[in-house]
Amino acid sequence: MLVEAAYGKSSVRLVLVARHGDRHDVRDLTVAIRFEGTYDESYTAGDNTGVLPTDTMKNTVYALAARDGLNDPESFGLSLARHFLDRNPPLLRVHIDLVDHFWGRLAVGSHEHGQAFARVGPDTRTARVSGTRDHIEIHAGVADLLIMKTGRSAFAGYPRDEFTTLPETRDRILATALTATWRYDGIDGDFDTLFRAVRGTLLDTFAEHDSRSVQHTLYEMGEAVLRNVGAVASIHLVMPNRHHLPVDLSPFGLENRNEIFVATTEPYGLIEATIAR
Amino acid sequence: MLVEAAYGKSSVRLVLVARHGDRHDVRDLTVAIRFEGTYDESYTAGDNTGVLPTDTMKNTVYALAARDGLNDPESFGLSLARHFLDRNPPLLRVHIDLVDHFWGRLAVGSHEHGQAFARVGPDTRTARVSGTRDHIEIHAGVADLLIMKTGRSAFAGYPRDEFTTLPETRDRILATALTATWRYDGIDGDFDTLFRAVRGTLLDTFAEHDSRSVQHTLYEMGEAVLRNVGAVASIHLVMPNRHHLPVDLSPFGLENRNEIFVATTEPYGLIEATIAR
Amino acid sequence: MLVEAAYGKSSVRLVLVARHGDRHDVRDLTVAIRFEGTYDESYTAGDNTGVLPTDTMKNTVYALAARDGLNDPESFGLSLARHFLDRNPPLLRVHIDLVDHFWGRLAVGSHEHGQAFARVGPDTRTARVSGTRDHIEIHAGVADLLIMKTGRSAFAGYPRDEFTTLPETRDRILATALTATWRYDGIDGDFDTLFRAVRGTLLDTFAEHDSRSVQHTLYEMGEAVLRNVGAVASIHLVMPNRHHLPVDLSPFGLENRNEIFVATTEPYGLIEATIAR
Amino acid sequence: MLVEAAYGKSSVRLVLVARHGDRHDVRDLTVAIRFEGTYDESYTAGDNTGVLPTDTMKNTVYALAARDGLNDPESFGLSLARHFLDRNPPLLRVHIDLVDHFWGRLAVGSHEHGQAFARVGPDTRTARVSGTRDHIEIHAGVADLLIMKTGRSAFAGYPRDEFTTLPETRDRILATALTATWRYDGIDGDFDTLFRAVRGTLLDTFAEHDSRSVQHTLYEMGEAVLRNVGAVASIHLVMPNRHHLPVDLSPFGLENRNEIFVATTEPYGLIEATIAR
Repeated sequence: MLVEAAYGKSSVRLVLVARHGDRHDVRDLTVAIRFEGTYDESYTAGDNTGVLPTDTMKNTVYALAARDGLNDPESFGLSLARHFLDRNPPLLRVHIDLVDHFWGRLAVGSHEHGQAFARVGPDTRTARVSGTRDHIEIHAGVADLLIMKTGRSAFAGYPRDEFTTLPETRDRILATALTATWRYDGIDGDFDTLFRAVRGTLLDTFAEHDSRSVQHTLYEMGEAVLRNVGAVASIHLVMPNRHHLPVDLSPFGLENRNEIFVATTEPYGLIEATIAR
Repeated sequence: MLVEAAYGKSSVRLVLVARHGDRHDVRDLTVAIRFEGTYDESYTAGDNTGVLPTDTMKNTVYALAARDGLNDPESFGLSLARHFLDRNPPLLRVHIDLVDHFWGRLAVGSHEHGQAFARVGPDTRTARVSGTRDHIEIHAGVADLLIMKTGRSAFAGYPRDEFTTLPETRDRILATALTATWRYDGIDGDFDTLFRAVRGTLLDTFAEHDSRSVQHTLYEMGEAVLRNVGAVASIHLVMPNRHHLPVDLSPFGLENRNEIFVATTEPYGLIEATIAR
Repeated sequence: MLVEAAYGKSSVRLVLVARHGDRHDVRDLTVAIRFEGTYDESYTAGDNTGVLPTDTMKNTVYALAARDGLNDPESFGLSLARHFLDRNPPLLRVHIDLVDHFWGRLAVGSHEHGQAFARVGPDTRTARVSGTRDHIEIHAGVADLLIMKTGRSAFAGYPRDEFTTLPETRDRILATALTATWRYDGIDGDFDTLFRAVRGTLLDTFAEHDSRSVQHTLYEMGEAVLRNVGAVASIHLVMPNRHHLPVDLSPFGLENRNEIFVATTEPYGLIEATIAR
Repeated sequence: MLVEAAYGKSSVRLVLVARHGDRHDVRDLTVAIRFEGTYDESYTAGDNTGVLPTDTMKNTVYALAARDGLNDPESFGLSLARHFLDRNPPLLRVHIDLVDHFWGRLAVGSHEHGQAFARVGPDTRTARVSGTRDHIEIHAGVADLLIMKTGRSAFAGYPRDEFTTLPETRDRILATALTATWRYDGIDGDFDTLFRAVRGTLLDTFAEHDSRSVQHTLYEMGEAVLRNVGAVASIHLVMPNRHHLPVDLSPFGLENRNEIFVATTEPYGLIEATIAR
């Protein structure tokens, strides 16, 4: 009767300051932990014998960061996953989700400051480590990366029915809040470097593509990642279409030479796909 | 190489006012439409030949509501699903998600007003109609239903390790923002009545249960729905544990007789399960 | 050079459970405290000699609730204000802002449950206690009260210029998220009863008014409060105009008989006024 | 009886793309307009004779941007303010609030792309133009600028009472979401350059200051702006104290060498001041 179940702790906020003399490094993560396993009795009978409290999960995040340090989110997630799988017999599958909030150094004059930072956003870096005692997979990603192109974006040639009013366009704004998640083909790697390579490829391709639709550009972005970054096995992209509508200025005796737009949030198109080798 | 893909329109906001003389009925929906099918060429080659614009999807929501009226969200979703499946050869699977924002009538004196309303919330009613030309399924649900019990809630008997600091408790606050989604075993029914029956059972069970954990109460709530409402085939419940922590008053020379709590939002436990017949 | 300054603690979350046998009462407040006074040296010289830590302000909220109990938000705010004014010589003016999140009892069968609750919203009740050692004022309010009328709402007779495109309407939807704040003429009173009287008057008047504009209805609502509730000295109302736009169905060969609307959030009108005796 | 009143339009979203051959410039603004004047009859009698519709205000934003172009937010706000004051006899005082969402150019290889952009945030630039036919003032600002320093921040020497539990610290994290608003002493100027000068001074000072409290650093930041940027007449700073609490690792047999913190959002300190010449 209990078909599937999971429990865990979300929104664990960890800030780690590594102090190298006057130069500090900051890592700011939000961590979520999710357990799946032989926990049926806790649901059906209220038997907590094997149920590691989610409060202990939270404590473990802080304790492991303190004990072992913290390089990249992927490696930290891997340590957490292995720790939990090693210690908890009922645990069959664990998921560790991490959001990395990036703080850039402030520059004072021509020097980077060692101890002062500003958040760089609104996009975040993400990672997911998930698996069993036998097999673990690592996903990385970027979320809420707001990008816009004001040229080389069209949408035309689509079918029309009695409810179609959209005019075809050869030159529209294409704006999105990109969320991409990619799976690495192993659990080793220089994850910071890999992240920058994938993120750079996504942005370059978005900028350069002659877009016939969001779908068209999304696919090209994913394919370019697979082409450029050998460690990526597959990639999932989600691109909401944040419509920028040209304002009709004709009632005011003015012409809109494709310059004046209203940015809208509702409704929005939503396009997604997974591309794999 | 294109493993899976979907596209559609989200956050289509529809308010329908049905006017029966001086008495108006209001239905306030947010609709999302999602298409899956043989759209690969739109991704790989920018060929939009079969791609119904998401703008047309939006128009169709308004047109069908105007043409056919709107009873419950489930029936309206079913009309939309069938409309799109009938008209679009490349479409193989459609999902219609609906959020129903409930407006209750204002009372003036002892009378319900016919044309003035207040939003009742923060919870919403949800529905999902999804499927193919051969088979359609209907899910209904409730989202963000904030509930709290101040008695008959314990958490004890769990395993301890070197990172455990949580004290056992026989009498804690249990508070959650319930999201539940259940599948009906058919596509007919009095969906408004069914919704009230399921919602009522969830609330009654939450109130009455002797809780040994969130898991324990979650399961009991789901099982009670299956027991009481024959039309429900399965139910999925998500219950974030919104921790209410007793404040340590001892530094102030005061005792906390389980009365003074700080309500927290981060971190939070997250418990979920699917229960089926 | 320091023209004005203030400091304090915000978002202090307090839940108090008063236990009367099997029947519990819940009060759920968010409290903010703000100090103004002779604190210039803390800004200009980093001298913290007189600066009560905001952490202590937070502790005081919990300690006073535990020691003295908690009836209505206004009385609790008054206790906090007096406590801080009595103890802190540099403090010249204090503001205590309180948001009251209302939990209604769940009903099981025909009985109210003593220990199980659901949040009633999305609106909240607010209170502000502010003043000096010589004079304290109490404001109360309601925030985010979503109300809509589908009849007896017009907007016409306004001036037109070369940028006007809005058609006049005799029958539009009027929807708003009302925030109202009123000042009592003293610091005593049955604040729960007064709150219900003001809230009821606001809703009745909104429902019954023949509205020529948001301004027109806002004023009538405020005036009705002053007429009906003698303890109210003045009232400030803020009514964003959440536009519900009739959908143009003519491209689809359908007529919109003032029934089909798109609810919008951006842009919105914003109307406010203060009305006093 | 009508003590004060205002009405207007908020959240007008304008994106302007200026096309200089292959190189486009993007300006992305959210505009709010607020009218005060002799509009009492619209409130008290529903007389809309002089009430410029808020819909016309919105149209005017788009029309003026199309007709006159758009350099900086301050100049555009000034054009809007003058337009409304010139045309509307009942209007006595107008406020134009602008939020500037900055889009940076994507770099492809070593070249800036002419038509592809990414949002830089989460901070925004703000401007306010307000005044009468006789006198107009311009404020500029920055909002939600998330900054953190991991060294040279203390808080000690404060008074203690029976509710004080906060330990003194010589070395804490200081993190805030800075909102600053400053008034220029005239209505002319190179507002883009001025904005960069003020923003840079705020960041430099935050980085370099030996902080004894948020108040202390806030004042130093404001004073530095007045010292460095002659065009600024006064500045208001708001600095919520986003507490980063050291995690107690002693139950785990670990020492926290001021490295492991939990970032919190509730409750938070809130410090503000206005500094003028």
